[in-house]
Amino acid sequence: MSERVVLAYSGGLDTSVAIGWIAEETGAEVVAVAVDVGQGGEDLEMVRRRALECGAVEAVVADARDEFADQYCLPALQANALYMDRYPLVSAISRPLIVKHLADAAKKFGADTVSHGCTGKGNDQVRFEVGIGALAPDLKVIAPVRDFAWTREKAIAWAEDRKLPIDVSKKSPYSIDQNVWGRAVETGFLEDIWNAPIEDVYSYTQDPAEPRDADEVVITFDQGVPVAIDGETVTVLQAIQELNRRAGAQGIGRLDMVEDRLVGIKSREIYEAPGAIALITAHQELEDVTLERDLARFKRTVSQRWGELVYDGLWFSPLKEALDAFIADSQQHVSGEIRMVLHGGRAVVNGRRSEDSLYDFNLATYDEGDSFDQRLAKGFVQLWGLPSKIAARRDQRP
Amino acid sequence: MSERVVLAYSGGLDTSVAIGWIAEETGAEVVAVAVDVGQGGEDLEMVRRRALECGAVEAVVADARDEFADQYCLPALQANALYMDRYPLVSAISRPLIVKHLADAAKKFGADTVSHGCTGKGNDQVRFEVGIGALAPDLKVIAPVRDFAWTREKAIAWAEDRKLPIDVSKKSPYSIDQNVWGRAVETGFLEDIWNAPIEDVYSYTQDPAEPRDADEVVITFDQGVPVAIDGETVTVLQAIQELNRRAGAQGIGRLDMVEDRLVGIKSREIYEAPGAIALITAHQELEDVTLERDLARFKRTVSQRWGELVYDGLWFSPLKEALDAFIADSQQHVSGEIRMVLHGGRAVVNGRRSEDSLYDFNLATYDEGDSFDQRLAKGFVQLWGLPSKIAARRDQRP
Amino acid sequence: MSERVVLAYSGGLDTSVAIGWIAEETGAEVVAVAVDVGQGGEDLEMVRRRALECGAVEAVVADARDEFADQYCLPALQANALYMDRYPLVSAISRPLIVKHLADAAKKFGADTVSHGCTGKGNDQVRFEVGIGALAPDLKVIAPVRDFAWTREKAIAWAEDRKLPIDVSKKSPYSIDQNVWGRAVETGFLEDIWNAPIEDVYSYTQDPAEPRDADEVVITFDQGVPVAIDGETVTVLQAIQELNRRAGAQGIGRLDMVEDRLVGIKSREIYEAPGAIALITAHQELEDVTLERDLARFKRTVSQRWGELVYDGLWFSPLKEALDAFIADSQQHVSGEIRMVLHGGRAVVNGRRSEDSLYDFNLATYDEGDSFDQRLAKGFVQLWGLPSKIAARRDQRP
Amino acid sequence: MSERVVLAYSGGLDTSVAIGWIAEETGAEVVAVAVDVGQGGEDLEMVRRRALECGAVEAVVADARDEFADQYCLPALQANALYMDRYPLVSAISRPLIVKHLADAAKKFGADTVSHGCTGKGNDQVRFEVGIGALAPDLKVIAPVRDFAWTREKAIAWAEDRKLPIDVSKKSPYSIDQNVWGRAVETGFLEDIWNAPIEDVYSYTQDPAEPRDADEVVITFDQGVPVAIDGETVTVLQAIQELNRRAGAQGIGRLDMVEDRLVGIKSREIYEAPGAIALITAHQELEDVTLERDLARFKRTVSQRWGELVYDGLWFSPLKEALDAFIADSQQHVSGEIRMVLHGGRAVVNGRRSEDSLYDFNLATYDEGDSFDQRLAKGFVQLWGLPSKIAARRDQRP
Repeated sequence: MSERVVLAYSGGLDTSVAIGWIAEETGAEVVAVAVDVGQGGEDLEMVRRRALECGAVEAVVADARDEFADQYCLPALQANALYMDRYPLVSAISRPLIVKHLADAAKKFGADTVSHGCTGKGNDQVRFEVGIGALAPDLKVIAPVRDFAWTREKAIAWAEDRKLPIDVSKKSPYSIDQNVWGRAVETGFLEDIWNAPIEDVYSYTQDPAEPRDADEVVITFDQGVPVAIDGETVTVLQAIQELNRRAGAQGIGRLDMVEDRLVGIKSREIYEAPGAIALITAHQELEDVTLERDLARFKRTVSQRWGELVYDGLWFSPLKEALDAFIADSQQHVSGEIRMVLHGGRAVVNGRRSEDSLYDFNLATYDEGDSFDQRLAKGFVQLWGLPSKIAARRDQRP
Repeated sequence: MSERVVLAYSGGLDTSVAIGWIAEETGAEVVAVAVDVGQGGEDLEMVRRRALECGAVEAVVADARDEFADQYCLPALQANALYMDRYPLVSAISRPLIVKHLADAAKKFGADTVSHGCTGKGNDQVRFEVGIGALAPDLKVIAPVRDFAWTREKAIAWAEDRKLPIDVSKKSPYSIDQNVWGRAVETGFLEDIWNAPIEDVYSYTQDPAEPRDADEVVITFDQGVPVAIDGETVTVLQAIQELNRRAGAQGIGRLDMVEDRLVGIKSREIYEAPGAIALITAHQELEDVTLERDLARFKRTVSQRWGELVYDGLWFSPLKEALDAFIADSQQHVSGEIRMVLHGGRAVVNGRRSEDSLYDFNLATYDEGDSFDQRLAKGFVQLWGLPSKIAARRDQRP
Repeated sequence: MSERVVLAYSGGLDTSVAIGWIAEETGAEVVAVAVDVGQGGEDLEMVRRRALECGAVEAVVADARDEFADQYCLPALQANALYMDRYPLVSAISRPLIVKHLADAAKKFGADTVSHGCTGKGNDQVRFEVGIGALAPDLKVIAPVRDFAWTREKAIAWAEDRKLPIDVSKKSPYSIDQNVWGRAVETGFLEDIWNAPIEDVYSYTQDPAEPRDADEVVITFDQGVPVAIDGETVTVLQAIQELNRRAGAQGIGRLDMVEDRLVGIKSREIYEAPGAIALITAHQELEDVTLERDLARFKRTVSQRWGELVYDGLWFSPLKEALDAFIADSQQHVSGEIRMVLHGGRAVVNGRRSEDSLYDFNLATYDEGDSFDQRLAKGFVQLWGLPSKIAARRDQRP
Repeated sequence: MSERVVLAYSGGLDTSVAIGWIAEETGAEVVAVAVDVGQGGEDLEMVRRRALECGAVEAVVADARDEFADQYCLPALQANALYMDRYPLVSAISRPLIVKHLADAAKKFGADTVSHGCTGKGNDQVRFEVGIGALAPDLKVIAPVRDFAWTREKAIAWAEDRKLPIDVSKKSPYSIDQNVWGRAVETGFLEDIWNAPIEDVYSYTQDPAEPRDADEVVITFDQGVPVAIDGETVTVLQAIQELNRRAGAQGIGRLDMVEDRLVGIKSREIYEAPGAIALITAHQELEDVTLERDLARFKRTVSQRWGELVYDGLWFSPLKEALDAFIADSQQHVSGEIRMVLHGGRAVVNGRRSEDSLYDFNLATYDEGDSFDQRLAKGFVQLWGLPSKIAARRDQRP
C-alpha cells in the first residue's frame, strides 16, 4: 500500500493545489478532510467532490458544528476566555477540533503523515502541529506553505497548469477565518495600525452606529451551560447561532486589536464575535452573582492562563486539562437567568435571577429587614488592617 | 487643652450632626475636614461655614482635585485597575486621599482621634480605618454610625432638636458617592437585582441609546501619563474632566453590577465613570502596542491584585507599594497616541501611533517587505510542543 | 427538651472545666466530642469517662485516624502543601475534621450550638468557626476562652472548686498540638525569636546531630497515593506512621519559624513533622519526574493558594474545593517509586523509577542513542527571544 | 578590515578548536573572551595565551567576580530564586554576565558576530542567544557545536591535526559548569535516574554524613544585602565565598534533581551550592520576620516567575526588569541578623534579630504584657467566614 497523507482541506486554492503537490512530491496518496465548524460558505458535498477532482484518493467531510459548540465553544464560555482580555479565541478553539478529525482520519485511512496549509508566522501552525503531537505523537507533519515557501502566485500557476477546477479570479482583499464562535480578518491596509477599519471588513455584525430598536433577551444557564433563550430550550449551538443573529444585528462583538502572537510578533487583527461576546457577558454576570468571592478571584487567574494556553496551541496539554477540572467544579452553581439589552454595539445586563444566587437581599439592604450585624465589623476592620498597621509603626520610627 | 477629634466632614446631615454628638459624648473639640475631590455640589466655603455653625472648633477645606488626579487616579489608570474586571475603584481611591488629609489635620491640630460617618456593612469603613492605621497608627477612630447605630431618623431628630442649619427635607432616594474619577449609586429599588436601572439614576452620562453624532478624540500619553487631548496639552485632572464631559455626552462608562464587598456580602452597584473608562481603554490599547508580551501577561496579574488591594482598603500597604514599583517600571515606553471614537455608549479605539511601538510592520506584514524568517518556525513549533508530545506518548501507552 | 451544646473536648483542663461552665452559664446540656487524630496520649475511653464525670450528658469519642489520613493528610500531601514554603499545616488540617465530627454530633444529638476552647489570637478559632459556618451554617458558636476571657488560673480555681477529676499539677511549659501529621509547640522562652530551641522541645524526632546509621527507604505511589513502603503495602495512615517512626529516628522534619497568622500577627512556632516532610519530599520528586512542565509550574501557584486557604481556615470553601479538582486531575500519572536516604535530619531522594516518567533517556542523553534533533533548536531559540529582541531594538534607539 | 567574531572562550578543547574552525569557515578574525566568575581552575593569563596560540587575533580576560556577585548573585538572593523550588540558577545567572562581556567586546573590537560552544539540547544556547539579542540585537550568532554538529571526537582530531596546545587526554567523565554561586554536574551514569550519585561527583561540598563539629554563623543583612559575617564586614563576593567554604565543609547545598529544561525535555542534574543555599535560607528567614504578610505571599509568585524567566534565558527581558523593581522595593526593611547552625548537610536558622522586625512580642505572647485585644477576633472571624457561610447555606438547601 502507498503511504498516505491526511490533508486539512478547506476547498480553497491553497489546499486544493496542495493535494496534487503533496502527491507528486512525496509519492503518497492524499486523503482530504474538511470539517464544518459553522464557517458557512460552500456546501460540504461540493467541497468533497472538488477534493476528489483535485486528486485526493479519499475525501471526508464532517458536520462538526454541534461537537464544536459543545466541546470547544462551551469550555471557552465557561472559562470566560478572552485572550488579552478581549479576543474570544475564535480560530484558536477550532484548530484542535480539526486536529482531532485529522488524527481520526489518519488512523482510519492508515496515514502516517498529516498536512496543513498554515504559514510560518502565524499561530495556527502551532495549534495544528502541537495538537497533532498531543493526539497522535507518531504522525509526521508536512507544511508546504511554510516549509516549501508556497505563495499565492505559485499556487495559481500550478492550478492553471494542472487545470484544477478552482476559480482563482476571486481574491478577497482580506485574509479571513470564520466559524460559529466568530470571525477573524487580517488585511493589507489594516497592517498600518493607525488606519481604522472600514465597514466592508465586517460580515457577522451590522454597523452599531446605525439607529435601530433595542432587543432584549433572557438567557438561562444551567450549571454554566446556556440552555434556553427567552424561555425556549436551545442546544449550545443554537444558543450561539441565535445570539450571533440577534447580537450581530445590533453590531455587538466587533474587536480591533494589536495582539501578541505566540511566534513573538505583534499583529493587528479585526474580530467579530457577537454570540460569543453576548454569551460571555451574560455568563460572567451570572458568575458574579453565584460564585463565592475567593473562587471568583482565583478563577480570573485560571481564565487568563486557560486563554493563553489555548491561544498558544496547547489545547490538549496536561495543564489545560487540569484547569478544565477546576473550571468544571466552579460551574456547579452557575444556574439562573440573565436579562440583557442588545443595542448599539452594547450587550448590557440589567437583570439577574438565580436560585443559586449568593446575593442576599437581607444582608445587602440598607432598608428594613437588614440582617447584617454591623457590630462585627469593628473587629474585622481592625484585624484586617493589623499587618499594615504594624508595618506602619515600624516604617515611621524616627 | 481639650482632646480633639478630626472628623471627615461632607457637609451633609450625618456628619453635621456628628460634630455636636461627638463633642457631647466625648467632651472633645471637633475639627471638621472637607476635601474636594471633584464631587461638585456645594461651594467649599459654605461647607466650611456650616461646620463651624454646627459646632466645630476648626474647619478645614481643601481643593485636592489635582492631588487626587495625579496621585490616586493616575496610578489607577496605569494599573488599568478594574475590580472584578469592571469597576474603576471610584470611591476606593478617594478614601486614602481623604485619610491623608485627616491624618495631616490630626497632626496639625493636635488631635488623637479621627472620626468617619461610614456604616458597618460597607467597604469605606475599612478604607478609612485601615488607611488611618497605616498613616498614623497611634490615632484612635470613632465611627458613630456603625458603633453607635446612628440612623437617618435619629440624625434628623438631633438636628431639629439643636436647630442645626441643615435642610433635612431633601432626601435623595439614592445613596451616592462621586468624584472626578466617577460616581457610585446604591438605591432601594435596585437592591432587587432583577430590576433594571432607570435613566433617573444617572448624572455623569447621557442615555447612550439616544441618537447623536459620534465624537473622535486623540489622546497622547507620555510614559503612561495622559498629556494631551486632540493635541492640546492637559494636566491629568483636565484629561479626566475633558473625557468625563465628552465620553459622558456619549453615554460611556455606565456599569451595573453585583460586586463582592470586603465584608463578605454581595451588593448591587451602579457606577458612571465616563472619563475613567475612556482613559483606561486608551491606555490599555497603548500598552498592547508598547509592552512586551511576557510583561503584559504578568501585568494583568499585578493589575488584578492591585485592584483587589485598593478595593479592600490596603492603599497604603507594603504590597500595594511594591506593585506600584512594578507598574512604574512598566510605563517607561507607554508613550504615543490613541485615536478613539466615542459614540453610543462605546469608546472604541481605531488607531494607534507610537515611536515606542513594538508592532513591527515588516515582521507582521504578509505583503512585500516581510522580514520574518519563516524557516525558524518549524523548530520553534516542535520544541514548543515537545512537553505535550512526550506526555501524550506516555498517556497513550496501551 | 433542654438546649444542647456540642463541645470539642480534649480531655484537658480547659475543656473539662468548660463542660460545667457552659452548662451553668447557658442552662444547656453539654455533649462532649473527642476525636483521635493520632495525637497519642490518653486512652479514648478514659477521656470519654472524664467528660461524663465533668458533667457532660453525652460523650462521644471517635477513632478518626484513617479518616484523617485519607481525607485530610492525603490532600495536603498531593498539594505538597507547605505554608510559607515550610509548614505542613499540621493543626490546620485537623481542625476541619474535628469540625465535621462536631457538626455530625450536633445533628445527631439535636444541639443548636457548638463550643471550642481556642483563644482569640490564634488561627484555630477561625478554623473552627469558619468550618462550622460552612458545614452547618445555622449552628451558633460559644468560645469561652476568647469571649469570656477564661485563663488557666480561672480554670484551675473552678476545677478545684467543683472537685473535677483533673490533675492540674502537671503543667507543661509548652503549648502543644499534635496529630499523626505532626506536632506544634509554642512556648514562653521561644517567644524571644533570638532564642534557639532546646532538645527538650521535641518529641517526634531524635536529635539529628547525633551520629547513627543511615536508613534507606523506597516509597511507592499510585496516582499520588503512597501505597507501599519498601515493597510492603500500606494504608495512608500506615505510611505516615512508618515514616514518622523512621524519619523521626533520623531527626527529620524539625521546623523553627516565624509565621504569619491569619489574625494579623507574626508568631514563633516550632514544628516536628517527620512523616509529612519525608512523604512530601518523595511526592514532589515523583511529580518532577511525571508532571509536564507547564502543569508543574502552575501547580506551584495552586499549592501556595491551597496552603494559604487551609491555613486561613477555609478548608470547606468553594475555592478550596475547586483547587482540589485541579490537584486530583494532576495526580493521574504520579505513580512510581522513590528511593530516599533518611539520615542526619535530611530526607534525600537519590533514585526515581516510574512507568509514567516523562524523563526520556533517549532525549536527555549526550551519549549514544540521542534522539533529540538539535537542528530544531536554532529556530526555537530565535523565536523564543524575539519579543525581547524587538523590545531591545526599541529601547536602544539613539 | 576583516570581519570579526567574538567567541566565548573557556580555555578548553571545544572552544580552543572553535577559534581556528571559525576563522577557516568564515574568513573572519576571532576575538576570544574569557570571564572569571569564580569558576577556579586555570590562571586567566594562561587562558589568554592559549587563545592567542590557537589563532585568536585578540584575547580578552576579565576578573568579573565582584560584578557577578553584586549584579547577578545578589538579585538571585533577594528573589530567593530557586527554580522548581530547588535549583539556585547557578549557570543561568552566569550566562547573562558573559553575554554582557561578549557584547562589550564586539563593540570594542568591531565584531558583527558572536559565537558560543553550547549544544542544541541545553538551556545555555538560549541564554547566550536571547541575551545577545537583548543587548545587541544586530549581532549575528554562530553556534558550531549545535549548528555544525561538532563532536568531541571531531574536535580532538582537529586539534591533533593542527597541533593545538591542548591536552586532549584528560577527559572528565562529567560535564561540569561552575562559578562562585555553585556547581553543576551532568554525567553518563546519572542519566539513569534510579542511580544514586557517588561521592566522586562532588567538589564544593564534603560528605554531609561524616561526623564533624557544628559551625554556627551570624549573617548580617542590610536592605537585603549580606554585609557582615560573624560581625566582620564583607562584600557580597566575600559573603558567598566564606559560606561556600563553611557551608561546603558541612556538606550543605547538594541537590540531585530531575529538571524541566526550556527546550522541552527533562534532565537529571546534580548541583552543589553551599553558599547560595545558606544565604538564601538566611535571607528568606529574615524576610519572614520583616516582610508584611500580603507582600510576602505575592513575593513568592514573583520569585517563582523570576526564577522561570532567568532559567529560560530572559535575564534582560522587560518582565524581568519590572520584577526587579518589585523586589528592590520589597527589600527596604530586610535588615537584621540571622544566626544559623551549619552541620551535617543542614543550614538551620535558630535566631533572628532585627530593628525592622514585624514580629511584635507584645502581640504574640501568651504571657504578661499581651497587648492583643482578643475581643476583636469574634467579628473578624465571622466576617472572614461569611462568604463561605452564605455559599454553604445555598449549597445545603434541600
